[in-house]
Amino acid sequence: MNQRLILASGSPRRKELLTLMGIPFTVSSVNIDEHLEGAPDEVVMALASAKAAAAAIRHPGAMVLGADTLVYCNGETLGKPVNEEDALRMLRMLSGNGNYVYTGVCIINGATGEKLVRCARSHVQFVKISEDSMLRYVQSGEPMDKAGAYGVQGMGGMFVSSIEGSPSNVIGLPMHLVREMLMKMGWQL
Amino acid sequence: MNQRLILASGSPRRKELLTLMGIPFTVSSVNIDEHLEGAPDEVVMALASAKAAAAAIRHPGAMVLGADTLVYCNGETLGKPVNEEDALRMLRMLSGNGNYVYTGVCIINGATGEKLVRCARSHVQFVKISEDSMLRYVQSGEPMDKAGAYGVQGMGGMFVSSIEGSPSNVIGLPMHLVREMLMKMGWQL
Repeated sequence: MNQRLILASGSPRRKELLTLMGIPFTVSSVNIDEHLEGAPDEVVMALASAKAAAAAIRHPGAMVLGADTLVYCNGETLGKPVNEEDALRMLRMLSGNGNYVYTGVCIINGATGEKLVRCARSHVQFVKISEDSMLRYVQSGEPMDKAGAYGVQGMGGMFVSSIEGSPSNVIGLPMHLVREMLMKMGWQL
Repeated sequence: MNQRLILASGSPRRKELLTLMGIPFTVSSVNIDEHLEGAPDEVVMALASAKAAAAAIRHPGAMVLGADTLVYCNGETLGKPVNEEDALRMLRMLSGNGNYVYTGVCIINGATGEKLVRCARSHVQFVKISEDSMLRYVQSGEPMDKAGAYGVQGMGGMFVSSIEGSPSNVIGLPMHLVREMLMKMGWQL
């Protein structure tokens, strides 16, 4: 199949991961109200579906991918921090603690109407972090545009002692799952 | 402490991971005969120590870090593939299978004579990969300079369904372990 994917997300990490997979795509980011109540897996799948659906309307007949990621810790859902104080609050929660990263992925084939929605979950274990380390990390700017206020693929990687699950899911797009879903839709990968 | 680390490794991935940690360093790669018999954890710790020791001689009084990574699958140790056929052989072993990534890390403080040697191990689970996918992956060139013929941080990430352990260890340098070891040596991180 000689096709181009529409990525319904403005996330630079998702762009990077799709590029690594060798998938030709065009970005068409959509604005969705990301505040939803519910179990984390349901929330990310609902938001991924909403993003894909919005982009599908804009690109009739195209193959569209929507995704949404959140971090879940101590029964609380962590999105992107609203400011540095909020980032520090999240890092204090994560320090010495485990958290779960959920990414929902929705692919819509506009030509056939076919739709797939899946979710990946990874567990991430943090080392204990001192207040000084947290402050330096927040001042680096890295936490500010990331769900849960950390990037495992960046400086934040040094706070992560182990993960269980897909590593690319923790970055924002579970590559093996996207591959599997696209292959079901007829792509060669 | 206002110090500079000597990195006894020419690996671009290790350079990148140390840079992410915000550690000032200078590369001083050393040539070590990497063929050693023994248990994988012992081999990587011995090679990491040999690299650090060789660089420490060249840089008296400095803080030196040596590291070595190998992949262990079906009781066989996988280093870097010698050619494309060898890369395909490794990928056929990895397909649908689990493998272990070992990285040995040795830090020598040339000023005090102190030396730390540690090892990290991560389990990596691969999806089933078709011969066509393997061929495309080998032709991308990515496997050729990597132990076990894959890079989890690159296109190879789409073949990895899950890992258990440090994700940066799978790339070639366990960041949380390096952080812990440097902190023991008096660095602020």
